[in-house]
Amino acid sequence: MEKLFVIKIGGNVIDDAAATGHFLKGFAALAGRKILVHGGGKAATRMAARLGVQTQMVEGRRITDLPMLEVVTMVYGGLVNKNLVARLQAEGCNAIGLTGADAGSILARKREGWAVDYGYAGDIVRVNGEILLKLLETGLVPVFAPLTADDQGQLLNTNADTMASVLATALAPFYEVSLVYCFEKKGVLADPEDDESAIPHITHGKYGELKAGGVVSKGMIPKLDNAFAALEQKVAQVIICQAGALGTLSSGIALSGTRLTLS
Amino acid sequence: MEKLFVIKIGGNVIDDAAATGHFLKGFAALAGRKILVHGGGKAATRMAARLGVQTQMVEGRRITDLPMLEVVTMVYGGLVNKNLVARLQAEGCNAIGLTGADAGSILARKREGWAVDYGYAGDIVRVNGEILLKLLETGLVPVFAPLTADDQGQLLNTNADTMASVLATALAPFYEVSLVYCFEKKGVLADPEDDESAIPHITHGKYGELKAGGVVSKGMIPKLDNAFAALEQKVAQVIICQAGALGTLSSGIALSGTRLTLS
Repeated sequence: MEKLFVIKIGGNVIDDAAATGHFLKGFAALAGRKILVHGGGKAATRMAARLGVQTQMVEGRRITDLPMLEVVTMVYGGLVNKNLVARLQAEGCNAIGLTGADAGSILARKREGWAVDYGYAGDIVRVNGEILLKLLETGLVPVFAPLTADDQGQLLNTNADTMASVLATALAPFYEVSLVYCFEKKGVLADPEDDESAIPHITHGKYGELKAGGVVSKGMIPKLDNAFAALEQKVAQVIICQAGALGTLSSGIALSGTRLTLS
Repeated sequence: MEKLFVIKIGGNVIDDAAATGHFLKGFAALAGRKILVHGGGKAATRMAARLGVQTQMVEGRRITDLPMLEVVTMVYGGLVNKNLVARLQAEGCNAIGLTGADAGSILARKREGWAVDYGYAGDIVRVNGEILLKLLETGLVPVFAPLTADDQGQLLNTNADTMASVLATALAPFYEVSLVYCFEKKGVLADPEDDESAIPHITHGKYGELKAGGVVSKGMIPKLDNAFAALEQKVAQVIICQAGALGTLSSGIALSGTRLTLS
């Protein structure tokens, strides 16, 4: 089975020009099929402030009213996505910028029935694996902004971590998928105070022990729960690493960061 | 030879929600291969004003300094493009939003050596007809924002009329191409005061007569010059019509508007 990397890059990395440049070189150099999913929350918050649009977050999730939807559509779909695509093209990577609306690649629906009204937030209903397969087999590298649309043509703000994990599981029948979360830290840290304490390998069993022992920080738990859910749906491995470590992935094995597998 | 429509929709139409809705229904209903190129200048000017970015125009062309490039990247590539794509998808049209950077579809370079410094304005160097052919033959409908990039990954603001005409000529070896400019008027008017005076058919010879007789308005001349240049490069026909008249194109023959052919 051919390998596919689905790589999520967070807003903090994107916000740092030097880190982004380094990351994009690593990403472009990665051999084989790949998909990039990016955030952009920090840039959206800044642009919202410039436009007098208030940013409201509940439990780390953005409340997306109509003015905020306009901001994220501009920043994620335009500013961040098109700059990443142009820079990847200059690095020789045949990137194509997408949202879930483009090519009908990801269908979502407005989040309803939660205790908090998140506004125009989209929960993913279905991935069109067939069209993604066609784009990938044409040699294109999809670069996803965290936006989707419902079947009425309404754009929706969508969590980038979730988008990456849903794309990875949807493509698991066609490829040996590695789902990679790139962020500022070197991996899942055994000691949050020690940046060099990344745990190299966590199985599902070990994850239970780490949670029980209080080793895994609260903010990390939803990420890891998502990761193990993806593994249960046939994703081959999940890697959590620093954006700069991407170059070490070329062989398909992470030389740094934390590797998660079921067993 | 299969037919292909390359349709340009202007910023004035896009700015009118009802006109856009009507246009998108007509566009979605159009049978066969098609490409949409959109503007968005009015929305960009409004967003620039909200951000305190000054809009400067010289002879109808926007001066694109870095703050304005940020605005047009957000508005053309994000706000306008993604909303059009999502709405077309809801109409059953398998739209995919692109800039020239995406899939390396259009390479441009920064405009240099002109009397006026237009800033980050891009002149098109080359269209990648092969990748567009692949997307079209996959059943996708490219929706182009008027943005391109150079080979260094620098995004550039690009004239949408020109982009439409360059796409039409690049695809003329593969399809029988109709290039359609949709705007507010019913076509090229014999009498600018009379909206019902659209001239049904203009050949190259007749165009010379109309220019000599002062019938064609000054603003229309660059558009028509471009149109005849496209015809000389094997585009089958150019149609200038009202956005709402698109439904009448299904048979490949404009039932209203002005049709331009070489002879």
